[in-house]
Amino acid sequence: MAQKPSIPKGTRDFNASDVAKRTYIMETIKEQFQIYGFQPIETPSFENSDTLMGKYGDEGDRLIFKILNSGDYLDDFINSINSFNINSSLILQEYCKQNSIFPNKEIVESELEKDFIKASSVAQKYLINLGISKEKFISDLLPLILSFYKVIPIDDLIKFSEKELIECSNYIVGSFFNKLKPEYLTKWLSEKALRYDLTVPFARYVVQHQNDIEFPFKRYQIQPVWRADRPQKGRFREFYQCDADVVGSKSLFQEVEFVQLYDAVFSALKLEGVTIKINNRKILSGIAEVIGAQDKLIDFTVALDKLDKIGEDKVKEEMRGKGISEDGITKLQPLFTLKGEFGEQIESLKSILSASEIGLKGIEELEFINTAISNLELKTAILQLDVTLARGLNYYTGAIFEVSAPHGVKMGSIGGGGRYDDLTGIFGLKDMSGVGISFGLDRIYLVLEELNLFPSTITESTKVLFINFGQDEAMFSLNAVTKLRQAQVKAELFPDAAVSGKQRKKQMNYANRRNIPFVVIMGEEELKSEMYTLKNMVSGEQQTVNFDQLLSLLK
Amino acid sequence: MAQKPSIPKGTRDFNASDVAKRTYIMETIKEQFQIYGFQPIETPSFENSDTLMGKYGDEGDRLIFKILNSGDYLDDFINSINSFNINSSLILQEYCKQNSIFPNKEIVESELEKDFIKASSVAQKYLINLGISKEKFISDLLPLILSFYKVIPIDDLIKFSEKELIECSNYIVGSFFNKLKPEYLTKWLSEKALRYDLTVPFARYVVQHQNDIEFPFKRYQIQPVWRADRPQKGRFREFYQCDADVVGSKSLFQEVEFVQLYDAVFSALKLEGVTIKINNRKILSGIAEVIGAQDKLIDFTVALDKLDKIGEDKVKEEMRGKGISEDGITKLQPLFTLKGEFGEQIESLKSILSASEIGLKGIEELEFINTAISNLELKTAILQLDVTLARGLNYYTGAIFEVSAPHGVKMGSIGGGGRYDDLTGIFGLKDMSGVGISFGLDRIYLVLEELNLFPSTITESTKVLFINFGQDEAMFSLNAVTKLRQAQVKAELFPDAAVSGKQRKKQMNYANRRNIPFVVIMGEEELKSEMYTLKNMVSGEQQTVNFDQLLSLLK
Repeated sequence: MAQKPSIPKGTRDFNASDVAKRTYIMETIKEQFQIYGFQPIETPSFENSDTLMGKYGDEGDRLIFKILNSGDYLDDFINSINSFNINSSLILQEYCKQNSIFPNKEIVESELEKDFIKASSVAQKYLINLGISKEKFISDLLPLILSFYKVIPIDDLIKFSEKELIECSNYIVGSFFNKLKPEYLTKWLSEKALRYDLTVPFARYVVQHQNDIEFPFKRYQIQPVWRADRPQKGRFREFYQCDADVVGSKSLFQEVEFVQLYDAVFSALKLEGVTIKINNRKILSGIAEVIGAQDKLIDFTVALDKLDKIGEDKVKEEMRGKGISEDGITKLQPLFTLKGEFGEQIESLKSILSASEIGLKGIEELEFINTAISNLELKTAILQLDVTLARGLNYYTGAIFEVSAPHGVKMGSIGGGGRYDDLTGIFGLKDMSGVGISFGLDRIYLVLEELNLFPSTITESTKVLFINFGQDEAMFSLNAVTKLRQAQVKAELFPDAAVSGKQRKKQMNYANRRNIPFVVIMGEEELKSEMYTLKNMVSGEQQTVNFDQLLSLLK
Repeated sequence: MAQKPSIPKGTRDFNASDVAKRTYIMETIKEQFQIYGFQPIETPSFENSDTLMGKYGDEGDRLIFKILNSGDYLDDFINSINSFNINSSLILQEYCKQNSIFPNKEIVESELEKDFIKASSVAQKYLINLGISKEKFISDLLPLILSFYKVIPIDDLIKFSEKELIECSNYIVGSFFNKLKPEYLTKWLSEKALRYDLTVPFARYVVQHQNDIEFPFKRYQIQPVWRADRPQKGRFREFYQCDADVVGSKSLFQEVEFVQLYDAVFSALKLEGVTIKINNRKILSGIAEVIGAQDKLIDFTVALDKLDKIGEDKVKEEMRGKGISEDGITKLQPLFTLKGEFGEQIESLKSILSASEIGLKGIEELEFINTAISNLELKTAILQLDVTLARGLNYYTGAIFEVSAPHGVKMGSIGGGGRYDDLTGIFGLKDMSGVGISFGLDRIYLVLEELNLFPSTITESTKVLFINFGQDEAMFSLNAVTKLRQAQVKAELFPDAAVSGKQRKKQMNYANRRNIPFVVIMGEEELKSEMYTLKNMVSGEQQTVNFDQLLSLLK
């Protein structure tokens, strides 16, 4: 029975034109990465689950694609359950005896659920004898016991013989399995997961290969990542990331270079007038310090970010609602009117943050970058200070970057990045400062498409098609095709012989539909004279030429 | 707690040099693919499971990496089990009543396992009332019932009240779960799987997009595939495939072009003297026909393949052992001494296969290809007939290709392919003949490495490093670096200032270890005079130059 073919939601097939355009963007980015001294690395599509899990928050963990273990992937789980069934029955029996204060099922349930520790403290004596750790008990055994309680009245239970309790083990498993949460089962079923971004695998790579790496290490990486996100317009479950990072240097020259790199890439793509927005985590910390609300940094930034949309009054209202003091808001007044050039904004910030050491440090960093960029001059991009920029607040510690498309193009950010002071700490390599940027391939694609910036040459495929008039003509044609190909001309012979005028027409149409600009008509006459009739499919013009002329016309 | 970082077995990290070499091979292949008129496509890394499962045999199904469903992936499974528990109890009760001939558990079990159909025919009456289809019964319900029988004596069971039977449902689930085979559970837990090769996704692509494709469709695809194979030397769980296929034409010119394409790629890689072995499935069918052993085609080919290693006598012995008749072996005699040029071998085959229409058809096809290739001439490869070549016997229907490395290099095949007459039938598009070839990236890599054929230029990264003497010098240097980069020179500034001679030495060593051929020394004096001291790191030679001279020396 034939299947109706489809692909998973959130994934895409790319045809020749898509591939050519995507390749053009990636190759342009890659070329600039290399000119700037970044070296390529590639990491496996899947990592050990513990490399990825816990690095992106709970939401991230949920969105990571897990790979089912191969082979008899249930064995470990089932064996573990089985070995605990017997133990849990014994513990339960003892627990019930000691806690006759819980005569009925409902109370036992609620007490146990409320007080895992109490339950486990009683059970622990037995656990030691059984060789079970407290962690194992809490993670594996207690859920079983709780499930058990929910289906058998405790009064009946304590009358059970050991044999009967053991016989109940399958019953427990059934009950347990019914209540099993995926979070719990997943670790038994899966120990590998698809890459969620390129930063964590990069950190893992740096730590694993630290002895083979010269620091500062400038690497780039262009590979797909996968996220089990709800698919929507412009958001996919499989997409490429294009990242460049430096690890092992705190020098602000890196930040300067990344601004230049953004400029270089977008200029090379002829996407002129992008805005590179920059901020610094230290400035955000300084502001929070000044208004005495270190814990409200996110609320504050979220509110400030809406200034353009809802206006000063409503932003202040929201800040008050989030518990930011009137005094704090007064101190912030200059922020609401922060305007003008980078330098002017910096001066306003200096007065706001005069009392904050960390804030002033942030200003100093921004000033350094701005001065350097002013001296070096950007080709087509605009560098702009944006104190509301707070992306990745959780892990950035210094500069924060975000790039937006030229004015008039409605599109979210097409790039972003920043500095994180402890990139590799999670894998045991301390004090490695990292800074990096990323390019949003899919969005850049949409912007170039909208502005009609893809060079027309990139989707050009075959240059010439030889119409196939029959065996002898085809053999002669293939000889010419072979020589053209050796001279790097993209040439093809239609594989099947056209024995009628209608079929020849079909082959011409094939060339047309594939946008092949030339066809060679190589019929009986041409074969006799060893000449080639070359037809320009755009102008319709035809000329009959020898091979050398043909080559020079197609080269 | 820091994790010790590692990657899953069978996967690899690639450093800059690895990436450069692999890119070189892939770009070389890609260039020839394009010159030959192939167009790129890309398909998603994961496909719907039913697109892949059942296409590669049982072993293949086992080796496909499955992706765990996201979210509450157990819900469907548990709901299905729960809804069937009650139904299965009722059916069981009735079944037991009607089949009192099975008084004890063991007999019931063995009968049920032997005779699923019989059991289900009794149960079907009830199924109709319950709204359960026969397929559902066999796939979902019967395994539950069987598990049930294995743990409760039937004599007890038929005494159960309906209420008691329902109470047993959790027990059944537990028992069922304990006996659950991964094959059964997997379809509930996973509906996506990682690409196992590029051929099935290509077939899916062609059918899905048939209305947008011009046939014959020549596509290439270079993407990773994943197999849960036992990792071993040279065999990985993630590896790239590089495939070119044509679909929609039966013309033998395609086969001719693929031989040329192999020759073109390996010649471009400077890997001269590879052997392109060719065979034809029709010849193998012809041989089987001649010896009256159509069903022993694989045994026969496996035995014949050992001719070089074990000699004629032992091959014949093995054939006899597999049941091939003495008469058949006598008829095959000329095969054992098949020697000489392609043309001579063809003549011998003609006499062997004179009575087989299909065999003669295969010979005709081989002759056509050989004649064409002789006329067109290969650049560096050798085309060789090999009647023992039988790779992919299950799906190839015409030509079979395999490429081996030049003599003296110990390596399995570095490429292979063939024609399959019904590529897309499984997805509902009939009569689409396909023919294609594949390049083995990892093996080609090893061969090029062994023969030292990688061009030294491909691993060249940064051309010049500016030593960082301090803020002012660095700022001046970055100006020069920026201008060099704009002229496409790969240039870097060491990000951190070297304030001591020791630190400057460290920066020089950094350049050395990274194989950066030039450094620029830009100290206080150079800053004053706006001159650059350029040091050649290989010769040690130094010269002081202005920017224009610097640029022309590095360009």
